[in-house]
Amino acid sequence: MPISQMEEKFPAAYADFVKVCGTLEEHYRDMQDMEFTVENGKLYMLQCRSGKRTAQAALKIACDLVDEGMISEEQAVLMIEPRNLDTLLHPQFDAAALKAATPIGRGLGASPGAACGKIVFSAEDAKAWAARKEKVVLVRLETSPEDIEGMKAAQGVLTVRGGMTSHAAVVARGMGECCVSGCGDIVMDEENKRFTLGGKEFHEGDAISLDGSTGNIYDGIIPTVDATIAGEFGRIMGWADKYRTNADTPADAARAVELGAQGIGLTRTEHMFFDADRIAAFREMICSDTLEERVAALAKIEPMQRADFEGIYEAMGDRPVTIRFLDPPLHEFVPTDEADIEALAKAQGKSVERIKSIIASLHEFNPMMGHRGCRLAVTYPEIAEMQTRAVIKAALAVRARHPEWDIRPEIMIPLVGEVKELKYVKDVVVKVADELIAAAGSPMKYLVGTMIEIPRAALTADAIATEAEFFSFGTNDLTQMTFGFSRDDAGKFLGAYYDRKIYESDPFARLDQAGVGKLVEMACRLGRQTRPDLHLGICGEHGGDPSSVEFCHKVGLDYVSCSPFRVPIARLAAAQAAIKEKNA
Amino acid sequence: MPISQMEEKFPAAYADFVKVCGTLEEHYRDMQDMEFTVENGKLYMLQCRSGKRTAQAALKIACDLVDEGMISEEQAVLMIEPRNLDTLLHPQFDAAALKAATPIGRGLGASPGAACGKIVFSAEDAKAWAARKEKVVLVRLETSPEDIEGMKAAQGVLTVRGGMTSHAAVVARGMGECCVSGCGDIVMDEENKRFTLGGKEFHEGDAISLDGSTGNIYDGIIPTVDATIAGEFGRIMGWADKYRTNADTPADAARAVELGAQGIGLTRTEHMFFDADRIAAFREMICSDTLEERVAALAKIEPMQRADFEGIYEAMGDRPVTIRFLDPPLHEFVPTDEADIEALAKAQGKSVERIKSIIASLHEFNPMMGHRGCRLAVTYPEIAEMQTRAVIKAALAVRARHPEWDIRPEIMIPLVGEVKELKYVKDVVVKVADELIAAAGSPMKYLVGTMIEIPRAALTADAIATEAEFFSFGTNDLTQMTFGFSRDDAGKFLGAYYDRKIYESDPFARLDQAGVGKLVEMACRLGRQTRPDLHLGICGEHGGDPSSVEFCHKVGLDYVSCSPFRVPIARLAAAQAAIKEKNA
Repeated sequence: MPISQMEEKFPAAYADFVKVCGTLEEHYRDMQDMEFTVENGKLYMLQCRSGKRTAQAALKIACDLVDEGMISEEQAVLMIEPRNLDTLLHPQFDAAALKAATPIGRGLGASPGAACGKIVFSAEDAKAWAARKEKVVLVRLETSPEDIEGMKAAQGVLTVRGGMTSHAAVVARGMGECCVSGCGDIVMDEENKRFTLGGKEFHEGDAISLDGSTGNIYDGIIPTVDATIAGEFGRIMGWADKYRTNADTPADAARAVELGAQGIGLTRTEHMFFDADRIAAFREMICSDTLEERVAALAKIEPMQRADFEGIYEAMGDRPVTIRFLDPPLHEFVPTDEADIEALAKAQGKSVERIKSIIASLHEFNPMMGHRGCRLAVTYPEIAEMQTRAVIKAALAVRARHPEWDIRPEIMIPLVGEVKELKYVKDVVVKVADELIAAAGSPMKYLVGTMIEIPRAALTADAIATEAEFFSFGTNDLTQMTFGFSRDDAGKFLGAYYDRKIYESDPFARLDQAGVGKLVEMACRLGRQTRPDLHLGICGEHGGDPSSVEFCHKVGLDYVSCSPFRVPIARLAAAQAAIKEKNA
Repeated sequence: MPISQMEEKFPAAYADFVKVCGTLEEHYRDMQDMEFTVENGKLYMLQCRSGKRTAQAALKIACDLVDEGMISEEQAVLMIEPRNLDTLLHPQFDAAALKAATPIGRGLGASPGAACGKIVFSAEDAKAWAARKEKVVLVRLETSPEDIEGMKAAQGVLTVRGGMTSHAAVVARGMGECCVSGCGDIVMDEENKRFTLGGKEFHEGDAISLDGSTGNIYDGIIPTVDATIAGEFGRIMGWADKYRTNADTPADAARAVELGAQGIGLTRTEHMFFDADRIAAFREMICSDTLEERVAALAKIEPMQRADFEGIYEAMGDRPVTIRFLDPPLHEFVPTDEADIEALAKAQGKSVERIKSIIASLHEFNPMMGHRGCRLAVTYPEIAEMQTRAVIKAALAVRARHPEWDIRPEIMIPLVGEVKELKYVKDVVVKVADELIAAAGSPMKYLVGTMIEIPRAALTADAIATEAEFFSFGTNDLTQMTFGFSRDDAGKFLGAYYDRKIYESDPFARLDQAGVGKLVEMACRLGRQTRPDLHLGICGEHGGDPSSVEFCHKVGLDYVSCSPFRVPIARLAAAQAAIKEKNA
């Protein structure tokens, strides 16, 4: 029965309904979706909830309600579900075409947005096809740093292995590109450029579509519509505003400032080496047999790092920039290709066998828990010396050009588990930095801090804070270590955990407050016991998740840092947390 | 100057010295090693310390002092350094020959004792050579379950990779066999059966000697002397006595009882599958494509497990036995050998390609943090069902033969990180167990508990204890996750950490009280908050380390469990901790 007939048939119930509607909408100050029934002429309300709407409509409604004086600007900020902003920031499938399509498989929705294109199986092919204006989707068993340029050239990335924070997922989110990871149902045959999924065999050049939000994979092309940021978006975001970004290059830094970032919470210095012309020097460093060889290779790297840091400081002005020293295991960078191995051997004047034996010696059983982070700086202090020189020289050079900027480098030592380990590396940094600053003739302040990403660092944060001038929680690794899962392997069993209702959500996407959160809270408390003005931030993927941002605010973090494309979401969530706390 | 001349030359100083000696020896109630000087006829005491002695001498002195009424039995127990007992329990090098030898390299002293023999490069060769009465030392890049029988056949094991708790180290300690692990200086060429160390190339059949206490490696044969347990040993141990053992087979269990174990703290059910005639069924289980195939393979395994459990219960009487359900990642068990792969394919009626593709799909980036422990039971509950049947049927059968024994099975679920995960597996166990016990017609109690080896389990121990009826701390894994190191990879950088005085001792050998210990303490406190009578134990390698045992006693653990060969050391350390506490 249409609602218009209700007034005639059940006048008393209708009058009641109109009154209740007014009460409910006034109470919730939002459009309501209500269920009710009428029995023997009497109205029974069954339930009500705020009406569902698209992100665009939500922004429009919020702005209208402010204009009508129904709600305040703060209330408008609270009304927007930050998670939904994703759809405003990335391409989406055409709604009608999507409805008509049936997924042929599903992976993890690792980086939001929609992508369609022709299948290619290697980064080289992705680049070559894209160069002749083909739209491509890169399908790989897993990705590695060598694939970065191919990922850039593709519309989207699909991987067979790897979780929400695998290489493919993290890099794609950083680029704002669609990615579906860990689709274990794919039977891959990379060599012959084909795979099977959902009973069908796919070859190079076949069309495929990916939904990076749901993880769905579709056969054929589903048309996409580009991201459209309506006028209301800017208006709401203007009302909102604590956030930094993760940015690894001058270009990232510039884009982040554009999207509203107030600083850089994480610059991953190793990401600077993925470009083809740079990785050669980096590989020479890795394959050095002696200190002299390593120092010579580091000398080639230093000017590149320094130039990048200069570009970042130029883009950020005097906004804070936290630079993390080399973190990943070295074997992530070694060549796998015969030709690359030969080139490296030639460059170093070594035999191909020697290079292969060095590469083999870098093998690790559990690379996540291996020779990486500050453990590299403890074994090879010359790496930390080079990185310190690059940071400090860049900061001094940019300040010389912009004397009005108060540039204060923040150097972050990753993967610390013990205060003496941090002190060892910090001593190396301070010696180099102080000499350069003294030689420059005018003082410059800098900070040395650490990532809290190893459970032991959180447990001994009172001791760590005697040396660390700031903490940044690396919640990706902290989640891995606290749960004892590897991000790349958890895909094999997490599905069963969701089915059996053991976990409700992916702990890599939403911060686990009961376990990981307890360590974060403990580290904040212990750290500030030692150093009351300790600066605290978070730079894991969780920085882009609204409920996690709210938790971070509650335990007293000063800033959250996430990939540039998540900055608006984090901004909104941080603003909501602050408003809720003020009103509590 | 001999001491006899002192009386003549400096009579006053000598009289003082005799008096001071008496005072000091009375005070320390032990033989003293004293330094002094005489200046201008005046005696200056510089320092004194209890005299060094061999383990045998220490036992003799302690017994003599008790007999002379100088010290009590308790004091005698406190006088023995538990660590030194190792030398009583394992073969040692002849002291004079050792003094004359120079080590050619050094690894980690992973399992004490001395070994010498001819070099072999594979488990098969070790078995073949040993069968013709050759003494051999097995040298491998690393060991895997397939090498177990070859390890048994060898005098000692030397590995290039792996830490104090690598496969080789753990298995060797369990066997009481000498092992030096992680000697990264070895340049290995397994294929051609040769390696280079200390500038020399070694081939199959060359002689080598290993010291499993210091980690030293020697060229050639250094004669060894067998372990000799003097009469005083038994006497002191009789005065001492809280300890269980780790035992995986009926034979282990019997030996453990002989060495004084009061129960089994850890039975690793997977160790039952390493024998050649058993691993086939286990591999069929792993390579199952369907539930039916898996159930059929499990049906072959069940009677073997049940028979082992019966043997263990027969050996242990009604001493407590804690049985841990399947823990390691499945890929540890898959065949690597072409012939084994073919045999498996044939047994399952599958193609070799299919088996290879299943094996490939089991690949993990970080196996330590992958699909293992209770994650296997969550994805394949039928494994937990089979193991429950085997345990309960064995206990019922043994009790039927020995009605006077109060057998109470303790089932331990490994690698739990979340209470709902434990509950899911416990529900599976309880359903199967209760049905079997009801069918048997007479009641039998059993306990379901968990390992605390994931930081999150310790952090949420109050929740975990709502389901767990006991906790056993798996401090090997807990140390790995808390430090964020893999036990097998840490060898690459721990050397630099010792050199730079960042760590004083190997956290896998001596429990890290500041970090890991904090989690242990927290878990004890939170667990007993929920369940005041919660039974607490430790079953990691640390159970055999004296200072760690003392810590466990302090935080209120009820028992420690370690490998049979470490039981005497743990017994002594536990007794010392109890005496110290009583006297405090």
